[in-house]
Parts: sequence; C-alpha cells; structure tokens
Amino acid sequence: DILEQVATCFNTRSLEGLEIHITAGPTREPLDPVRYISNHSSGKMGYALAEAAIDAGARVKLISGPVNLATPAHVERVSVTTAQDMLHASLEGLASCDIFIACAAVADYRPTSIAEHKIKKGNEEIMELHLVKNPDIVATVAASADKPFTIGFAAETRDVLSYAKDKLARKKLDMIIANDVSQTGIGFNSDENAVTLVTTTTQIDIPQTSKRQLAKQLIEQIALLYKQSK
Amino acid sequence: DILEQVATCFNTRSLEGLEIHITAGPTREPLDPVRYISNHSSGKMGYALAEAAIDAGARVKLISGPVNLATPAHVERVSVTTAQDMLHASLEGLASCDIFIACAAVADYRPTSIAEHKIKKGNEEIMELHLVKNPDIVATVAASADKPFTIGFAAETRDVLSYAKDKLARKKLDMIIANDVSQTGIGFNSDENAVTLVTTTTQIDIPQTSKRQLAKQLIEQIALLYKQSK
Repeated sequence: DILEQVATCFNTRSLEGLEIHITAGPTREPLDPVRYISNHSSGKMGYALAEAAIDAGARVKLISGPVNLATPAHVERVSVTTAQDMLHASLEGLASCDIFIACAAVADYRPTSIAEHKIKKGNEEIMELHLVKNPDIVATVAASADKPFTIGFAAETRDVLSYAKDKLARKKLDMIIANDVSQTGIGFNSDENAVTLVTTTTQIDIPQTSKRQLAKQLIEQIALLYKQSK
Repeated sequence: DILEQVATCFNTRSLEGLEIHITAGPTREPLDPVRYISNHSSGKMGYALAEAAIDAGARVKLISGPVNLATPAHVERVSVTTAQDMLHASLEGLASCDIFIACAAVADYRPTSIAEHKIKKGNEEIMELHLVKNPDIVATVAASADKPFTIGFAAETRDVLSYAKDKLARKKLDMIIANDVSQTGIGFNSDENAVTLVTTTTQIDIPQTSKRQLAKQLIEQIALLYKQSK
C-alpha cells in the first residue's frame, strides 16, 4: 500500500549488499518421542530483526527454532529443532556472512540420551534427569576462521549488564544486546522490549518500544557499528 | 451460514442437559523463570471434542494448557500452565460435572524446585535435574466423591491396547481412548487421528480421520455409553 511505499522511501538501505544470518526462537531438546525441554522464547525479536534487516537492504538467512510465526517476505528460513541442529545450520555458509545475530534462546543443556519410546511413568516418586551441556553456538561462530561481525543476546533476570559484559569478553563477541526478562511486559513472549546495546567501547540504551520499532533501531545501530569496525 | 444451519439440523443433541469438563493441551513445568519441560500436545483433539460436545448440546468447561488455538464458541475456557494448576481446576465444580474427559498430555514429572532466577550455565559438562511425580489428574477425578463418568486418553508409542486396558483398570476409569502416537500423520500436533475406544466390555476402533470428524464420532459413542452406564 501507499504507506508502505512511503516507508520504503525513508529506508536508509544501511545494510545494502550485506548478508546477515539471524538465529531465532527457542530450541527443543527431546527426552523421548513426546517430551522435551524448552523455554519461553516466542521468536518475535529475531523475526522482527530479520524483517528490519530486509528493509535495510540485507540478504537474510533466519535459522529458526519451533515458533508460531510467518516467515517475513524475502527471508530465507532454515527450520531447526535442537541446539545441535541450530549449530550445524549456523556454521553452514559462514564464509559469505557479514553479520551474525544470535537471537535464539538456545537450551544450555540437553538430555544425555533420547529414549526411543515414550518413557513410562514408574512408581518412583522422584526421577533424575541426566543432562549434558549443549554447544555454545555464538561462541563457536565467533571463534570460526570465517568470523563475521558477531552479536549475542543476554536475556537475564538480574545483574543484566554485568553478565552481558562478561559474555561479550568471554565469547569474543563484537556486540551484546542485553535485556532484563524479569520485567513484565518486555522480553520473552511479549510484543515489546527494551534493551541495552553493549560493545567494548559503547553502551546504548534503547527504551521500551514494540519489538518491530526496536528491531529497526537495532539494525541501524548494528549497521553503524559494523561499518566502524571495518 | 446455510451449510452450518443444515449441519445443526442433523445434530443429535445427544448430550442435551449434560455438563462436560475436558482437559486439553500440554502442561508446562517450569525449571526457572525462562525454562520448562513440556510435550508435543497441540490441544487440537481436546478443542475438537469441546466443539463437538457443544454441538451435541452439552455445557462445556475446557481446562486448557498453553496452546495456540481459539476457544470454540460457547465453551467456558479455564487456562492453566502446570499439572498442579490443572488438577485444581479439574477438581473445582466436579459436583455438577456429568462427564470428564482427560485429553490433556499432563507432564508426569515436574522439577523438584523452581529457581527464582534464570539458572546460569556453569562450567559443568553435565547436570542432574531432580524431578518429582505430578499428581495423576484423571485418577484423582475418578477417585473423588463426586466421580463423573470419567474418560482417559492413552497416547502410546507401543503396546497401545495393553497399556490402555491396564490404565482403565488401575485408575478406575469408565473409558479409555487409546491412540498410537508412533504413527506419523496422526496424534500429537497432527490434524488427523485414529483411536480405539476401550471400556471393560467394549472395544471400538475409529479409523483415521480428521480430529474434527473423530471428535463428533467420539462424542456420539461417549453419549451412548454414558447413558448405558446409568
């Protein structure tokens, strides 16, 4: 429609010619054919970033865990379930990737083994579940020979900035987008978010707004900091 | 529309004057503010049963775990998250309930404790998760002083009928609806299903069809067997 055409005229095309890979949504780690461990990520933030990146002129690959969202127009979507699937999809095609945004809420641990058949409820009142650590996707990308400009998210419920700065340094990222998921109305499953963008030299607060608006602002900041890094 | 009006004319109104409570969907058992254990139940079967029961003239309360489905018209929906929530909602108002259908895929176990803050990924390569058994909702309903005609589901990946018969006897149910979730194209998250309806004296196979059609057939059979039980 006309409004959309007008909006397009105001697009900065700040990512023209660049390729962005974005991970989004939760991962699901199966226990057996019917049960899994997951988290409350809706994928909305990652999908909004993919759409904003398209609007800014980028080629976008969206590596998505199971979510109930339509794939934005012009986005190449790769659907995955587990953290291991997501790692494989993330390492594929890194050579042509300029900016990698790890927006997915990846399960830290997965069950040590997946039962072939549905585990029957026994008489035991308690049960121990054995978990093993999942690969760290964003750290693996940042450590790869083809390292793109690598951006992580830190969704925390306390000490948000200190965890974010620690993560930035430890995983050798170029940027962290930190948000406080303990606040109601923003973050997981919500339509709004408020974040702080952290690099080794910068700290930029983006106040609460729709994930769509926030994504546009983030993409402009990312484009700027990416170009400054070259 | 006209088709709907015609369909209404053919309704048997076999549940006129009766009150049905139906549980549907998965439960989610939180580990911390962001993580949970759940299962692949979409809630489609329970929602289809609720709609078919309304069409058959019943008053319907739908006790639903987290799903992405619209509440059918005229259905009273009670939204719950955990198995404990679902138990409380299921025991409420049992005195006026004629038929109870436990269609939800309730998590058998929940984490022993829920962490107040997001659990940080440590350096440990492995982790033990301590789980405790959840209450058995359908067995608790069947054992209550106000016991309605109580129907359970048995979603299994093998030995489906033998598990179903064992469950019927052990939990003192009036009926079990058994389905084989190992078959692709039916059951969890699918739009179709095929089931076997099991009572102490009857075994009725309903072959693969849409969950909507299946729900209509099930409601007619349930109405019949309920009346025979009086």
